[in-house]
Amino acid sequence: MLKEAPPVKLFYAPNSCALASHVALEDAEAEYEAVRVDFRANEQRSAEYLAINPKGRVPALVTSKGILTETPAILFFVAQSYPNARLAPLDDPFALAQLQAFNSYLCATVHVAHAHRMRGYRWADDPSAIEAMKKKVPESVGACFGLIEHEYLRGPWVMGERYTIADPYLFTLAQWLELDGVDVAKLPRVADHRARMAERPSVRKAIAQETAA
Amino acid sequence: MLKEAPPVKLFYAPNSCALASHVALEDAEAEYEAVRVDFRANEQRSAEYLAINPKGRVPALVTSKGILTETPAILFFVAQSYPNARLAPLDDPFALAQLQAFNSYLCATVHVAHAHRMRGYRWADDPSAIEAMKKKVPESVGACFGLIEHEYLRGPWVMGERYTIADPYLFTLAQWLELDGVDVAKLPRVADHRARMAERPSVRKAIAQETAA
Repeated sequence: MLKEAPPVKLFYAPNSCALASHVALEDAEAEYEAVRVDFRANEQRSAEYLAINPKGRVPALVTSKGILTETPAILFFVAQSYPNARLAPLDDPFALAQLQAFNSYLCATVHVAHAHRMRGYRWADDPSAIEAMKKKVPESVGACFGLIEHEYLRGPWVMGERYTIADPYLFTLAQWLELDGVDVAKLPRVADHRARMAERPSVRKAIAQETAA
Repeated sequence: MLKEAPPVKLFYAPNSCALASHVALEDAEAEYEAVRVDFRANEQRSAEYLAINPKGRVPALVTSKGILTETPAILFFVAQSYPNARLAPLDDPFALAQLQAFNSYLCATVHVAHAHRMRGYRWADDPSAIEAMKKKVPESVGACFGLIEHEYLRGPWVMGERYTIADPYLFTLAQWLELDGVDVAKLPRVADHRARMAERPSVRKAIAQETAA
């Protein structure tokens, strides 16, 4: 099962989207080391970390072939590198593209809507504008998850009968719903998915590792 | 070369990120039909179009197997469906993941920074907040393209010697630099890439089609 030597290193921060890649590495039974980046100490902007990821963000995956960033790319690499784990429909181009479309929506629209709650400074300097962005998060994130609930989450897993790399990614973003001010009671299918994900050994192990470190 | 029958349909709007998929279809010598969605008439919110793409955005690719959305997914599907065009390193998982990482950065960070110039209403209601977002676009988009210039654009093409689906996507977003208030003189490698892209027959044909329609 292990295709990478030396073991890959996942750079993560607790409560970040890096959890999706962390869970996928567990799902793949990969040999890896999880390395915490301390956001409170602004470690993501240190020269040492910027040499790993010039964007100053997590996740980053250091492999024997080089460094990967961006959740959809890391998830896809894990699925390809550990094919026995069957984390993506690698032999079906259309199904694989649909999976990529879902993960693209999560990174480019859902995560972005969420980020306006705590990272508004990326897109405006004016403090009152940053406050205005926070106010809209329940609506914008709620609309994204409404689409996921009604259009995209096939059930029981995101892509249907087969668990894929879309599942830990959706789970990760769904962790933030309450803090984003979204009424989870209106999202029964998302809530059910989240509850089933939370009981998977891979998820429990990744979260325990991030909490303990 | 043609793997899809009946011809695929690409739903696009002029001056949108759909141009990337449009160029890739030309690069692949695909048989396709380009269908314009009239944003001025708010056609993207019509019941007819929402049945195609519930997100109310472009691009959308209608294929014999179903509908795809999200630029990175459509580009990847085109690369996989027309392998003779060699638009992605399909046989090298790490190189393919790097390509996906670049395209993820374009959709989740670069395009998002740009979108705050004209689509700030997605993330705030207050008109003064929307104005504040516009003001920061030269800085935020400029920072993204600075990273691309210095870290990610290998040259002559994004991924190096081989032209890939990252190239029409970068070209599409680079079309907006001047309107985003970014000083292109500080981005000589991006500017050179853009100029070489603009002369490719596939790019000229896709733009001519979108302009004429």
